[in-house]
Amino acid sequence: MLIVQKYGGSSVADATCIKRVAGIIAERYSEGHDLVVVLSAQGDTTDDLIEKAAELNPNPTRREMDVLLSTGEQISIALMAMALESMGLPVVTLTAWQVPIRTSSDYSAARIKKIETERLRNELDKRRIVIVAGFQGLNKNDDITTLGRGGSDTTAVALAAALHADLCQIFTDVEGVYSADPRKVKSARKLDEITYDEMLELASLGAQVLHNRSVELAKRYGVNLEVLSSFVRASGTIVKEVTKLETSKISGVAKDNNVARIAILGLRDEPGIAFKVFRVVSSAKINVDIILQSIGRESTKDISFTVPSADMDTAVKALEAQRDALGFASISADASVSKVSIVGAGMMSATGIATLMFEALYDAKVNISMISTSEIKISVLVNESDADRAIQAIHDKFFG
Amino acid sequence: MLIVQKYGGSSVADATCIKRVAGIIAERYSEGHDLVVVLSAQGDTTDDLIEKAAELNPNPTRREMDVLLSTGEQISIALMAMALESMGLPVVTLTAWQVPIRTSSDYSAARIKKIETERLRNELDKRRIVIVAGFQGLNKNDDITTLGRGGSDTTAVALAAALHADLCQIFTDVEGVYSADPRKVKSARKLDEITYDEMLELASLGAQVLHNRSVELAKRYGVNLEVLSSFVRASGTIVKEVTKLETSKISGVAKDNNVARIAILGLRDEPGIAFKVFRVVSSAKINVDIILQSIGRESTKDISFTVPSADMDTAVKALEAQRDALGFASISADASVSKVSIVGAGMMSATGIATLMFEALYDAKVNISMISTSEIKISVLVNESDADRAIQAIHDKFFG
Repeated sequence: MLIVQKYGGSSVADATCIKRVAGIIAERYSEGHDLVVVLSAQGDTTDDLIEKAAELNPNPTRREMDVLLSTGEQISIALMAMALESMGLPVVTLTAWQVPIRTSSDYSAARIKKIETERLRNELDKRRIVIVAGFQGLNKNDDITTLGRGGSDTTAVALAAALHADLCQIFTDVEGVYSADPRKVKSARKLDEITYDEMLELASLGAQVLHNRSVELAKRYGVNLEVLSSFVRASGTIVKEVTKLETSKISGVAKDNNVARIAILGLRDEPGIAFKVFRVVSSAKINVDIILQSIGRESTKDISFTVPSADMDTAVKALEAQRDALGFASISADASVSKVSIVGAGMMSATGIATLMFEALYDAKVNISMISTSEIKISVLVNESDADRAIQAIHDKFFG
Repeated sequence: MLIVQKYGGSSVADATCIKRVAGIIAERYSEGHDLVVVLSAQGDTTDDLIEKAAELNPNPTRREMDVLLSTGEQISIALMAMALESMGLPVVTLTAWQVPIRTSSDYSAARIKKIETERLRNELDKRRIVIVAGFQGLNKNDDITTLGRGGSDTTAVALAAALHADLCQIFTDVEGVYSADPRKVKSARKLDEITYDEMLELASLGAQVLHNRSVELAKRYGVNLEVLSSFVRASGTIVKEVTKLETSKISGVAKDNNVARIAILGLRDEPGIAFKVFRVVSSAKINVDIILQSIGRESTKDISFTVPSADMDTAVKALEAQRDALGFASISADASVSKVSIVGAGMMSATGIATLMFEALYDAKVNISMISTSEIKISVLVNESDADRAIQAIHDKFFG
């Protein structure tokens, strides 16, 4: 089998962690597998580098920031290679420009465009373990880029896709994907399998195991993903297109605090008013999630919607600036809300899922201010202070 | 003018140092000069990385060591660029592979083979300050190499040669080249000018200002070098082919403690015996410096010679292993010796220089065990405990 593995910053934080990971790699290699290993920067390296930069320039260019930050992964790959060499294993490191991993030109947020596989194949043909620096790439000017949040996961999945790998294993500090945040919900259980779509919904809902970009990429190229722990030897969660039918209809419960609700009251009830409102918001490059429009009984309408917390003030300002053109009475904004969601591919084919969820919330005395549904997800907006109680109640209802 | 500047690790050790250097660069740039700036790794970065490596592998491969260590200069160039950006200056960084600086394949001790100047020229044409990572290169496999000791100086001189720069300035933590070590000899004075050959002799004698490789390269390509301080704004020492005639016949006095004397006693007096002895030593890849062969009065000969201290034991072992083939009575070795030398291009055309030196040593009651002379240098081997006294006495005699 050709396996691409990725180990995050906490898995290579120090010599002890690196040796632990080297042990996992050695085991897989000795089983006869071909291995490509993607590494992140060690623990706090990136933060330390950002701090050094801040001492010199509060607002450095992204190009030079990428030159700086990409050293973190380069240090990780060299150290891991040394650990494997000391065990007598054949190994070679490759930075992103050595692969090369070609990206768009957007420094700090580059997208992978093409991965050349010739050198990778040559090294694998020599039965070498290939250690690749994650998070980074090379743009058309031969400048260093970085991939932004979740970058190393994306590197791993993209390599797996380019090499048609049999499996892409994402090693992290948790044992897999859980039915709820195990730090909050004691009865949370590890899922054996989950579909790409379910994983996408869970990731976007704040279950910070895999970044959406990598899951989207895995779905597009049909890469079999496994999320598992580098600290505990146990099977993790497999992410793939179709999973076995499970007893439970839903895969997990998640919450997202990074959300704010904006309400526009007293809008003129005229054709295209919703379009005009959201054109203003999207011009400010803000994504809107749940939308609720009042049913018009009077000559005016109300529109509520959610945006990422960080964008709340910008959105309000942009709308206020267009008050005359839009013609509304008032705006209110509230960041102390949470989105609580249940996710499950089998949800829509089963009846009563939403009812069960609402019942759980009713029993727990949690007020719902907005509701949104999709093929595989039901989300409700609740007060932030009610969110944990809501998750526990829903989890108990479905998994208890 | 096109100026290549190089700043060493102590000149970029922290944010304060980086800002100080950025100030020097900004000043030169505002005078209208084109600037290429070569940087070393910050202060202790390299040592820290070596320590990290040692935790994982006592004997890592040089390839991976180079991958690891080359991150140090990459961090320096990004930080310096950020400091210059914050001053509103146009700047771009280039790692060695981006230039590219092509080297031989010898990891950790690569030689520069070719520097492509197209990208450098393009960036300079845009009136950008170009910051280049020192100490590193790219071999024919597109692997990262490092240049070994004095690597960043070599990078700077090689860039100056390739770009036909008007001047190559090596910034360090001393104000230039001195007639003796200013920490030891109070009356030591800074030299305004010195020839390449004198500098080569001084460098090899332990005046650790410029590494020999960079001086050799400067001599070969006629690069005008200046050694100066990044901490004090003052002109330094110019190193070039021919200097103005100076009053003093010698340029400097230096000592080298990194030397050991090996004496082989009772060698068979037969043709080729010296050749046989030194073939053994050179097979062990050890350089021999001063050689003294006894004038044969008897049927046996004695040969004494000096080697670097670190190689003493290896040399003795290699010779002992060939005792039967060489046929000698005994070997003695002594690491507690120093080589004290005077250097000066005008030395041989002036009479009595050696006599003056020996007189100074006689007055200071310093015993001489070996003597070696060249066109521009006279060296004597003395007890290590006498070396500082010897230097002071010689310096007083010539410069006092």
